[in-house]
Amino acid sequence: MDSPKDLDAFRNAVWQRLSRGVADRRAAARNPVLSTVGLDGAAKARVVVLRGADASGGRLEMHTDAESQKVAELTREPGATALVWDARAKLQIRAEGALQARSGTEQEWDRVPAAARRVYGGTPHPGKAIAAPAAFAPSEVPARFCVLTLEIARLDVLWLGPELHYRAVFERGDDWAGHWVAP
Amino acid sequence: MDSPKDLDAFRNAVWQRLSRGVADRRAAARNPVLSTVGLDGAAKARVVVLRGADASGGRLEMHTDAESQKVAELTREPGATALVWDARAKLQIRAEGALQARSGTEQEWDRVPAAARRVYGGTPHPGKAIAAPAAFAPSEVPARFCVLTLEIARLDVLWLGPELHYRAVFERGDDWAGHWVAP
Repeated sequence: MDSPKDLDAFRNAVWQRLSRGVADRRAAARNPVLSTVGLDGAAKARVVVLRGADASGGRLEMHTDAESQKVAELTREPGATALVWDARAKLQIRAEGALQARSGTEQEWDRVPAAARRVYGGTPHPGKAIAAPAAFAPSEVPARFCVLTLEIARLDVLWLGPELHYRAVFERGDDWAGHWVAP
Repeated sequence: MDSPKDLDAFRNAVWQRLSRGVADRRAAARNPVLSTVGLDGAAKARVVVLRGADASGGRLEMHTDAESQKVAELTREPGATALVWDARAKLQIRAEGALQARSGTEQEWDRVPAAARRVYGGTPHPGKAIAAPAAFAPSEVPARFCVLTLEIARLDVLWLGPELHYRAVFERGDDWAGHWVAP
């Protein structure tokens, strides 16, 4: 990545990479780490697939099984972070905001590739004890197809440039104008 | 990665990869994402460098600037997760437990490579507003060299094998014997 000439260029580079994550399964932004607060009050995390990146609305979209632990966690504490680490570019993107879960619509389900549908369903539910890996029975359950939306309040971006470290914070509250901060 | 023949083999494969992360800067486990609970109660995350992996003690070690936000956060809520995603192996390692911060000793500081010492120090403190990226002045401040230890309570491991998904949970409370869970 090139040195960003100003805050606008830095923010645009971030959204470009997030969009690439949605479109290209080999892009670094394809697999953010989604951090949430567990029911025990401790921080939890898991890798997710980035399904949408809306720069103008400041939103990221991910999909999950409605029976996964993270969905239960959100009702207690919606404050979450989606982190992308692009090792090649040496760029860290942290999107912080409120994470909301809703049932996917029929049209959204229709757009889920056939091979991916088995992710939403299965017996027993995620995290329940089983005797052996083969004892899990996958199945397609459209009712368990859940859409997660992260409404970003704050984007914290760090780029480890060859000479300088660039770090900036962009906030919804100041219309994403952003400011530089110490790395 | 090969299909683990049993829980012991699965757990050993995980610790082998974590140890590789400490020794090899190109290993996937070199850069876990460390999730903590922020002072506002929301989940925060950042990429860190793995500096130690103690399989028998069930501990991971990372280093940070004592003035970084995460150190302040730990005093409120130590429950944290270190996540490693090895994209090539399709292996997700989640180490959950209590994160503690302490000052590094003089001997530990002596082992920090000269080039890495500038990470511990600098003005202003991390996250404080600056006029431009060049307005940050790095410096070596041994007193700000902080050692983070994650005392793992629970290791949650998911391997997306070519035929089956393997997921297991290993807990300190059952002496890391572990059990399979639904993916």
